Amino acid sequence: MKLNIALLAGDGIGPEVIDQAVKVSNAVAKKFNHEIVWTSGITGAAAIDAVGEPYPDATHEICMAADAVLFGAIGHPRFDNDPKATVRPEQGLLKMRQKLGLFANVRPTFTFPSLIDNSPLKRERIEGTDLIILRELTGGIYFGERGRKDDGNTAFDTCTYTRAEIQRLAKLGFEMAMGRSKKLCCVDKANVLESSRLWRETVQDMEKDYPEVEVSYEFVDAVAMRLVQWPSAYDVLITENLFGDILTDEASVISGSMGLMPSASIGVHTSLFEPIHGSYPQAAGKDIANPLATVLSAAMMFEDAFGLKEEAELIRSVVNKSLAEGIVTEDLAGKNKAYKTSEVGDWLAANI
Amino acid sequence: MKLNIALLAGDGIGPEVIDQAVKVSNAVAKKFNHEIVWTSGITGAAAIDAVGEPYPDATHEICMAADAVLFGAIGHPRFDNDPKATVRPEQGLLKMRQKLGLFANVRPTFTFPSLIDNSPLKRERIEGTDLIILRELTGGIYFGERGRKDDGNTAFDTCTYTRAEIQRLAKLGFEMAMGRSKKLCCVDKANVLESSRLWRETVQDMEKDYPEVEVSYEFVDAVAMRLVQWPSAYDVLITENLFGDILTDEASVISGSMGLMPSASIGVHTSLFEPIHGSYPQAAGKDIANPLATVLSAAMMFEDAFGLKEEAELIRSVVNKSLAEGIVTEDLAGKNKAYKTSEVGDWLAANI
Ligand SMILES: CC(C)[C@H](C(=O)O)[C@@H](O)C(=O)O
Ligand SMILES: CC(C)[C@H](C(=O)O)[C@@H](O)C(=O)O
Repeated sequence: MKLNIALLAGDGIGPEVIDQAVKVSNAVAKKFNHEIVWTSGITGAAAIDAVGEPYPDATHEICMAADAVLFGAIGHPRFDNDPKATVRPEQGLLKMRQKLGLFANVRPTFTFPSLIDNSPLKRERIEGTDLIILRELTGGIYFGERGRKDDGNTAFDTCTYTRAEIQRLAKLGFEMAMGRSKKLCCVDKANVLESSRLWRETVQDMEKDYPEVEVSYEFVDAVAMRLVQWPSAYDVLITENLFGDILTDEASVISGSMGLMPSASIGVHTSLFEPIHGSYPQAAGKDIANPLATVLSAAMMFEDAFGLKEEAELIRSVVNKSLAEGIVTEDLAGKNKAYKTSEVGDWLAANI
Repeated sequence: MKLNIALLAGDGIGPEVIDQAVKVSNAVAKKFNHEIVWTSGITGAAAIDAVGEPYPDATHEICMAADAVLFGAIGHPRFDNDPKATVRPEQGLLKMRQKLGLFANVRPTFTFPSLIDNSPLKRERIEGTDLIILRELTGGIYFGERGRKDDGNTAFDTCTYTRAEIQRLAKLGFEMAMGRSKKLCCVDKANVLESSRLWRETVQDMEKDYPEVEVSYEFVDAVAMRLVQWPSAYDVLITENLFGDILTDEASVISGSMGLMPSASIGVHTSLFEPIHGSYPQAAGKDIANPLATVLSAAMMFEDAFGLKEEAELIRSVVNKSLAEGIVTEDLAGKNKAYKTSEVGDWLAANI
C-alpha cells in the first residue's frame, strides 16, 4: 500500500519526537511492504519565523494532498505573555483545524500497567480506566466572533453551535459507544448556557436512533470532579470545544503517563495524529523528550487512517516491550539509566 | 455584638445542614454574648414551588437588610434534563449573585491531616496543600447575551469582561497574596480568547502596584492538569467565572473532604457563606448529610463578615475535635459508627 503522509514537526520538541515516529513508521512499512511518501510542511513559531504565518498555504496544500497528517507540537513561550502579539503559533493550530475540517478530537485515556504507580492518583482509583473523550474541535468559543469595545476596555468572545455541528460530533460518539460498552456521557453546562441546552436537546433527540446506548448528561464542573474521583466510571464522553480542552488535559494526568498519550483528530478532508503533550520548549534540542506519545500516535494513524490494524498492534507491542525493558527517556527512567530520545527511536525501529 | 444574618436553606439537604450551622452559631453567640437575629428566606426549587420564582424579591430584601447571608444549596434534578424548562433553581443563584453584587467567590482548598487518606490523590502529592481560588462571580459567559437563531437551530452565549470587573477581582487577589506567600497565578486562555487577553493585560498592568507579589500566568487547561499533579505548588489563583466553576470543583476533590469545604462570596452589598457541595437530593430528608462544610462556612462568616476571629477559631477547633473523636456522618465514618446530621450538630453545639 502507498501511504501519503504529511509531516508537520512544529516547534520545541516537535521535530525530535516526530523523527522517532518516522523511524518506527518506516520500519513498519518496510516489514509490511508499504511505501510511505512523507511530505514535510512548516507550522507554528517555526513557520512564523520563516514566512510570517503559523499555517502557511503551502503547508495546507501538503495536508490536503495527503491521506493523513502526523503532527508534533506547536507553541513558543515568547508569544505567551505578549497579549498584543498579532500573530501567534496557536493561530496556526486553529486555522489548520478549521481549514482541514478536523471536527472531532479523539483522546483515549488508559493506564499502562507497568507505569500505573507514576500516577498522582491512587492505584485503586484508576485501575481499569479506559475512556475516550471526544472533543468538538472546529466550533464553539474558539471560532466565534470576538473583539474589543469601549476603547479596548471591554472584551468579548462568542460561543456558537449549530444543531448540525453537534449532530456530527454526537454521531461519532454514539458509534464509538456502540463499539465499546454502549455508555455515552454528554458533558455540558445546560444549567447556564444556551449552547449547552442545544447540545443536550440535540443529543436527546438522537437517543432514539441508538436505543442500545445508555446516555447520561452531566455538568462540566461535576465531570471535572468525577474524572479525578472515579475515572473508570466513564467510557465515551462527548463535549464541546472549550470544555474538551480542559477535560482532556485533566484526564491526561490520570494514567501518570502523559508522555505516552496519543490522539487523533478526525476531519472532513483528512485526519491528523499527534501526541497530546505540548512543545515543551525547555527540553527542545536536548534529545531528552519522550517520543512514545508520537510513536503511539503513528500507531493510531496506521489503524484509523489506513485500516492497518496489524501494523498498529506491532508498534504498540514494541512500545510495551521498550517499557518492560526500561528503554525509556528520563521522565520514565526513575533511578535507572535514561535513554536519549533518538536512542529510544532507534531501539523501537530495530525491534519492529 | 448584634449580628443580622439572612438564612437561605434552599433545596435538598440544604435545610438539614443549615440547621446544624444555626445550632453551632447560636452556641457561639451565647458564649461570646452576641445576639444573632436570623431572618429566613426561600430560594431555589422550594421558592419556585411556593411563588414561581427561584430568588423572590422578598428574599432579596431580607439579604439586603442583613449583614451576611448563610446559604445552604439549591438545585433539583427534575429541572436538569428538561432543556426547555423556563424557570430553573440555578437562575435564582445567578440572580442572587448579580443582585447582591457577589463578585468574588473565595474557595480555600486545604487538607485535614486526619482525613488526608480519603483523597483519591496520593498523600505525598497533596500534603501541605493550602490554596485559594478566587473566582469572578458576576461576569463572563454566565451573564452575557445568549439566545437562539435559525429557528432554534443555532445557539449562542457571549462572554464579556470589562477592565473594571477584572481589576476589582484581581485587587482582592493581590491583597490576599500579600497576606499569604505573595504568589499569584492568573488563570486564563489568552492564547485563544480576547476576554482572556484583557484579563492578562489588566493583571500585568496591576503588577507594578504590588511589586512584592510574584505573578504567573497559566492557561486553564494546564492548570486543570497541574492542580491534580502538584496542588501544593499553587497559592492564590484568580480566574474568570466559568473557568473558576470548573477549577474550584476539580480542586474540591484534592482534600478528599468535599463535605467539609466552605466558601465565601464577597459582595458589593453583603457577603454570602455557603458549603461548596450541592443540594444532593438523593440524601434529602434522611438526616445523613455531612453538615461540616456549612458549619465551617459559618466560621468563615464570623471571621470575614464580622471580624470575630476567636469565635471562628472556636468553631474550627470543635469541628477538628469531632473529626478526631469520630463524631461524623456516614461519608466519613468508614467502618465506625455513623452519626446523624442532627447528632453531629448537637454534639458540636454542646462542645462550643
Ligand atoms: C494551543 C491551544 C490553542 C490548544 C487548544 O486550546 O485547543 C491546545 O491547548 C490543545 O488542546 O490542542
Ligand atoms: C448551579 C450552577 C449555576 C453554579 C455555577 O455554575 O456557578 C454551581 O455550579 C456553582 O459553582 O455554584
